[in-house]
Amino acid sequence: MMRKMSSISAGVLAIFILFSTLFGCAGLCPSSLKDPLPSWKDGEKKRGIIGFVEAVTDPSKASHLPPGERIAVFDNDGTLMCEEPLSVPEAFIFHSVVGLLEKHPEMGNRRPFKALREKDSHAIEKLSERELGELTLAPFVGVTQDTYIREAGAFLRESRHPRFKVPYTATAYRPMVELLDYLLSRGFTVYIVSGGLTGLIRAFSQEMYGIPAENVIGTTAMLRYGKHEGKSVLVRAPSFVMPINDGEGKAVNIWLRIGKRPVIAVGNSDGDLPMLEFTADRNGPHLLLLVHHDDEKREYCYDRGAEKVLEEARKRDWNIVSIKEDFVRVFPFQEK
Amino acid sequence: MMRKMSSISAGVLAIFILFSTLFGCAGLCPSSLKDPLPSWKDGEKKRGIIGFVEAVTDPSKASHLPPGERIAVFDNDGTLMCEEPLSVPEAFIFHSVVGLLEKHPEMGNRRPFKALREKDSHAIEKLSERELGELTLAPFVGVTQDTYIREAGAFLRESRHPRFKVPYTATAYRPMVELLDYLLSRGFTVYIVSGGLTGLIRAFSQEMYGIPAENVIGTTAMLRYGKHEGKSVLVRAPSFVMPINDGEGKAVNIWLRIGKRPVIAVGNSDGDLPMLEFTADRNGPHLLLLVHHDDEKREYCYDRGAEKVLEEARKRDWNIVSIKEDFVRVFPFQEK
Repeated sequence: MMRKMSSISAGVLAIFILFSTLFGCAGLCPSSLKDPLPSWKDGEKKRGIIGFVEAVTDPSKASHLPPGERIAVFDNDGTLMCEEPLSVPEAFIFHSVVGLLEKHPEMGNRRPFKALREKDSHAIEKLSERELGELTLAPFVGVTQDTYIREAGAFLRESRHPRFKVPYTATAYRPMVELLDYLLSRGFTVYIVSGGLTGLIRAFSQEMYGIPAENVIGTTAMLRYGKHEGKSVLVRAPSFVMPINDGEGKAVNIWLRIGKRPVIAVGNSDGDLPMLEFTADRNGPHLLLLVHHDDEKREYCYDRGAEKVLEEARKRDWNIVSIKEDFVRVFPFQEK
Repeated sequence: MMRKMSSISAGVLAIFILFSTLFGCAGLCPSSLKDPLPSWKDGEKKRGIIGFVEAVTDPSKASHLPPGERIAVFDNDGTLMCEEPLSVPEAFIFHSVVGLLEKHPEMGNRRPFKALREKDSHAIEKLSERELGELTLAPFVGVTQDTYIREAGAFLRESRHPRFKVPYTATAYRPMVELLDYLLSRGFTVYIVSGGLTGLIRAFSQEMYGIPAENVIGTTAMLRYGKHEGKSVLVRAPSFVMPINDGEGKAVNIWLRIGKRPVIAVGNSDGDLPMLEFTADRNGPHLLLLVHHDDEKREYCYDRGAEKVLEEARKRDWNIVSIKEDFVRVFPFQEK
């Protein structure tokens, strides 16, 4: 037996030596030696993130969290990907309503469709929440969920971002995709928590972020169960599943879906404030990041819709991530 | 380099030999040699389950499914654990309403509480769905979710099953817990899809089944986001999140939550029929199991509330699992 043990030891040692030679330190030396966030500038923000993740995943530390508690929640639009001039869910709604009005031009004579047909941004801004909901759902009411997913997929393949001339799915922030990869590699379960429609986000979340459909929490069209040619189908209804996944609804839906308070929350607008608060108020370690759009050259510059959360972040000392200062590179298609 | 490679090969071979010596065949020989379902009687049902799981998890087979598609859904009451004379969610509601009426005896004079106060089973059966909803939610309206979870935990610790004199959490069917373990070990993601209240089932799902809170899909009380002493809290509202998780609502909620059709569905009553159909109608391999309560001696004997699903199962040749015939042992506390 001893002879066998020593031949194993020799073999294992040889494997370790070979791997070290072939692949450098990866996996054998402390993980801090390999930079998990190369698109983040070295500085307080990056060190803070890595320090936090190491602290909660190191079993020798009091701050260690078991994998089941390592829950991270990310807003999508403006947090993981560009949301200007339209977010991808908004662009898909616009595209679908235009298609609907081509088929049914008579609908374009009445609110809320009139505002969109006339591209009257003033009138669009004045639409009530109920009217925005009607616009959002109308193109696919009575349509099966399978058809919706097919149409969403076609839109994602064929549409282009108006400024960057790339598919919307190429407008994810490279530093944020690195952060997702880093968290997944350290045993976190990551959820996308978006005001956008769940079905659309699921159509790209796996490929774009490595996040499976079941970890997408969005605003959701109610579905009705029915039969088509003897087979069960789900058909989209003209209403939303409540609560709408924005503002306080994000905190509520996180609990309904996960049953735990997150440890990490990342957002960029006032609609993310309750989700950030809900994470900050957990008992135990937590990390809050707020993406600040301050880079007109590489992305966009705006505080609109983020006034309250910026104020709260400054007051409570949450991490405000400056796209201009903290990101070496914003999009994969851009030079540094 | 060649020398290094051959020393690795020798080492790896030695490790394999040693493991074979120490642990028998585990992990190296076909897994079918170790019985994953010892509490199931050898026969068609058991062989069918194991054959199916092997077929969809064997990468060399055309029927192989990647782990992301290996979704299994299980009803809880009467499928994973005893539901007679009351299911555990029903028992908790009964317990909570009794507590409420002790504090507020004046409520006991009006419907639907009167029926419960007077233990009038005839009047209870006549309650409308809305009244049953009111009974279900009333004890915890305005209460924080943290308090609800604490009360649910206390009930689970202190209450006993009236016939078996064990905690409700000891009334899980041993063969079904083995099936859960087997599926989890083969890369399945398992969801509990129950008409019972999500918060209560989450209070025991991890310990009893190894299923984490986020994989429990139940009927859910609506929550309101609020602040208590400056901290964010979730407070229970007097309404349900729609759809109620029963019947067609189960199929809808499975899609809302997971975004995929399941591969395996297991139920026991008419409320599970749409979930079983929804699984049967997926493109590709699927396994349907219907637990049949036909063992008065070791458990209970009833078809009430399962008439339609039994008929459909016979017609479509789904697997009807007989507690009497297919289970070697039902509960861990019973002799064989």
